[in-house]
Amino acid sequence: MKFVKNDQTAVFALGGLGEIGKNTYAVQFQDEIIIIDAGIKFPEDELLGIDYVIPDYSYLIKNVEKIKGLFITHGHEDHIGGIPYLLREINIPIYAGKLALGLIKNKLEEHGLLRTAQLHEIKEDDVIKFRKTSVSFYRTTHSIPDAFGIVVKTPPGQIVHTGDFKFDFTPVGEPANITKMAEIGKEGVLCLLSDSTNSEVPHFTMSERRVGESIHEIFRKVSGRIIFATFASNIHRLQQVVEAAVLNGRKIAVFGRSMEAAITIGQDLGYISCPKDTIIEPSQINRMPADRVVILCTGSQGEPMAALSRIANGTHRQIQIIPGDTVVFSSSPIPGNTISVSRTIDRLYRAGAEVIHGSLNDIHTSGHGGQEEQKLMLRLMKPKYFMPIHGEYRMQKMHVKLAVDCGVQEENCFIMDNGEVLALGSEEASVSGKIPSGNVYIDGSGIGDIGNIVLRDRRILSEEGLVIVVVSINMKEFKIAAGPDLISRGFVYMRESGDLINDAQKLITNHLNKVMERKTTQWSEIKNEITDTLAPFLYEKTKRRPMILPIIMEV
Amino acid sequence: MKFVKNDQTAVFALGGLGEIGKNTYAVQFQDEIIIIDAGIKFPEDELLGIDYVIPDYSYLIKNVEKIKGLFITHGHEDHIGGIPYLLREINIPIYAGKLALGLIKNKLEEHGLLRTAQLHEIKEDDVIKFRKTSVSFYRTTHSIPDAFGIVVKTPPGQIVHTGDFKFDFTPVGEPANITKMAEIGKEGVLCLLSDSTNSEVPHFTMSERRVGESIHEIFRKVSGRIIFATFASNIHRLQQVVEAAVLNGRKIAVFGRSMEAAITIGQDLGYISCPKDTIIEPSQINRMPADRVVILCTGSQGEPMAALSRIANGTHRQIQIIPGDTVVFSSSPIPGNTISVSRTIDRLYRAGAEVIHGSLNDIHTSGHGGQEEQKLMLRLMKPKYFMPIHGEYRMQKMHVKLAVDCGVQEENCFIMDNGEVLALGSEEASVSGKIPSGNVYIDGSGIGDIGNIVLRDRRILSEEGLVIVVVSINMKEFKIAAGPDLISRGFVYMRESGDLINDAQKLITNHLNKVMERKTTQWSEIKNEITDTLAPFLYEKTKRRPMILPIIMEV
Repeated sequence: MKFVKNDQTAVFALGGLGEIGKNTYAVQFQDEIIIIDAGIKFPEDELLGIDYVIPDYSYLIKNVEKIKGLFITHGHEDHIGGIPYLLREINIPIYAGKLALGLIKNKLEEHGLLRTAQLHEIKEDDVIKFRKTSVSFYRTTHSIPDAFGIVVKTPPGQIVHTGDFKFDFTPVGEPANITKMAEIGKEGVLCLLSDSTNSEVPHFTMSERRVGESIHEIFRKVSGRIIFATFASNIHRLQQVVEAAVLNGRKIAVFGRSMEAAITIGQDLGYISCPKDTIIEPSQINRMPADRVVILCTGSQGEPMAALSRIANGTHRQIQIIPGDTVVFSSSPIPGNTISVSRTIDRLYRAGAEVIHGSLNDIHTSGHGGQEEQKLMLRLMKPKYFMPIHGEYRMQKMHVKLAVDCGVQEENCFIMDNGEVLALGSEEASVSGKIPSGNVYIDGSGIGDIGNIVLRDRRILSEEGLVIVVVSINMKEFKIAAGPDLISRGFVYMRESGDLINDAQKLITNHLNKVMERKTTQWSEIKNEITDTLAPFLYEKTKRRPMILPIIMEV
Repeated sequence: MKFVKNDQTAVFALGGLGEIGKNTYAVQFQDEIIIIDAGIKFPEDELLGIDYVIPDYSYLIKNVEKIKGLFITHGHEDHIGGIPYLLREINIPIYAGKLALGLIKNKLEEHGLLRTAQLHEIKEDDVIKFRKTSVSFYRTTHSIPDAFGIVVKTPPGQIVHTGDFKFDFTPVGEPANITKMAEIGKEGVLCLLSDSTNSEVPHFTMSERRVGESIHEIFRKVSGRIIFATFASNIHRLQQVVEAAVLNGRKIAVFGRSMEAAITIGQDLGYISCPKDTIIEPSQINRMPADRVVILCTGSQGEPMAALSRIANGTHRQIQIIPGDTVVFSSSPIPGNTISVSRTIDRLYRAGAEVIHGSLNDIHTSGHGGQEEQKLMLRLMKPKYFMPIHGEYRMQKMHVKLAVDCGVQEENCFIMDNGEVLALGSEEASVSGKIPSGNVYIDGSGIGDIGNIVLRDRRILSEEGLVIVVVSINMKEFKIAAGPDLISRGFVYMRESGDLINDAQKLITNHLNKVMERKTTQWSEIKNEITDTLAPFLYEKTKRRPMILPIIMEV
């Protein structure tokens, strides 16, 4: 890599720095590249119609022969969702924990890429050795089982990537391996890349075990049906629901494609242990007493097509809200979903259900550690250099403050942008260059074919609509042969706007007759004349600026 | 009113029940209608391009001769924003407190309605008497000065509308008149309509005075410039900023149209008292030491065009962020604005500012009372019947629980929908009918000309874009004379999709040639053939479903 000296290690990200989502990091020493995670980002509202956002992979594609492997910290979409798009370009080996690997397989199968993929399951004690670098792992706790921190040993020193983490001392699955972290720290960490998501949260994140207690309490108290909505990937939460159901003599019916998959994969891989007849068929619930039923479903974020939203809207094929139903949101709304969640809650109340939601009830906890946990990680790893990852810029900024409080030199902290390259020697570090790292939009089956012009058009169309002016012109006689006809969509309701349309037609006809006198044969000129005449007229009449599309047919 | 008996009072709302915004309530006894508030609602995201939402005023317009007046509780947009649209239809007398009246005048002037408007300033002790009913007021505390509760005396009993309220015992302006509320309660309240906004909040809302202390603390500590963003209408907050500035030897420059108006109106009407040379011209700030400057501005909700957003983006004409700047968000994000606020904060950090935001810093408090305050209101008013107003359904539901806890019979509580009429006798109450109360959309200068079809088109256009197929057909010879030409917007970037377009053209040409053989003269049939051929082709190739608009020109 041209940005670093021959004895330096390069650390950079294609996504995940100063933003949330599409987490994709890389560590490069000479001709060996270790990729960590390949996530996808869900688009913000202004990316109209875009399904997903992935990073620009061009640097990786260009340097494919150097890539030793893609190492996955855990199985959330913002860490594995980009894999099919990356693998379509370059078929590189993938290393992941058991559950992440199960989810990746599912995903690759859907994309028809499973047969050729090179998949390797990792265990905590594995060390994957390459010629100059090696990769090892340590167990962390997060809101999905099998989460790992990743250690890349390079000649200048060890680079540690925490993945997403919290310190849950009483987790539902295996505890974080603090001992190993301490050992890694003792060996010496050249640079720590650590999760900044909750750096604005002063407290220690509540244990998953406490959530379990709240679930038990609710299951004990409620006498009607329980409709339980949570993230499908939070397998530990599902396990706790299973336990509470068994303890209280309830059966569980599962709704929503991703929830069904999670329950199946979770049981197959041994993360969910569940007495044989606990899970029942959806069709069975209506034959059972209300106090024997748990409906476990997706939709805790108010996603319009998810099971819970359809239940709330009364459009679910199998479940209607009945009096006595209690709906539990075991989740907190992701920013951007606040309104849709609140709307779903409202509809459930209107339909007659009781709803338990919000942080007051201790029925959800974050998967990310707060400030005290971030400081614990810093004290364990004692890095020389520090690079906050994940979270927005202001969270990374706060994380740097914590790092300085924990003894990292302020000039050794690097808040970086996607694409920026940190050159790390054993005794020096600097931001030394930039590689391509833009956003690539996925819309339908198109990858990267939607750019700013298309998005700008969509925005105008969405807010102001469209007016098409069609006119046939006899170019020999310089006369209007037919039209102008006006067609609009998303502008005004045309049947009720006859006068507006008639006046506009007259205006254009008069103006075009004048233009024809100039005997112009330039279509673009005629088109501009139409737009320039019509736009101010429509604005004056409606205070709207629709997109105007003149179409001229030559006769 | 046909829904109520002759000795009953009707209470209903055109907006504000089970929703947030467009608050518009009415109390009718026989031929006397008292309207309370006329608000506007800001549209949710899916109302593409819509500027505002107002209620359907048709019942009021039809019964204009019965209307005695429009009484305003306070000057927030969701209580006065609809006035110009209502007044355009029916010129009715308006009664409002001094500040609200000032804001209403501003608004009517903009709409060219000020000259003919019948405006009356009310004071707390006024009683406005009509033949059968009378209207009186009591002072409350809220996040804008001059907030009133309204008491409508009708033959069956008193109807009390709280407006928006909290109990701030140490307010910046005048305190709430608890004594008068107790007297009204003692006299007897037939029905209480009470603000439900914060019924999910268990604690007592923090006093504005505490916010003042935090502001003072920040002004004392910060040594650079202070950029202070808050709601322009929160005149008390502005007063506290003025006080903190004076105490710490800082001058204030005001940015943003509504903030400038608030400072002017606030001073003119005596709500803001400010030493003469405290407010300086924007042009002066760059000549002053950083620790002598406060920049007071709009944009605390991340509104894209507001002063603060432009400062954050680096596009403000006069202010650039300089090192040492501290930006204070004295506000909390309204649901739906979470992302834009968070983005603005991030940009400010990136530009080098320190940012103080969030509830931890006590720099903002709600204008609405929590559960304890709602219960205090219930205990003071001791109503026979109760109708929760404002807030979403689930908040009204919770408010009913509080009312029952405070001694109101559960069957005497009415959670109502907009348009539903509550018929109140002195000894009985029931929901007795429904009047029109739909949403009317305002887009540009159009009121109600945007309906569901236009919105549906805007949605399709925004997510999938548009493909226009233009073809000239010789209807005598049943032959394609020119085209088909394809034009797209918001679908794919056409210059890079030559093959797709060419293939589509060929497909349509082939198909149309076959259609021509049928010698059809039905344009709609030809159009359908084009759409039905093209749609599956484009979906297969792109997995997108753009709007397809076939345009046929006859030659």
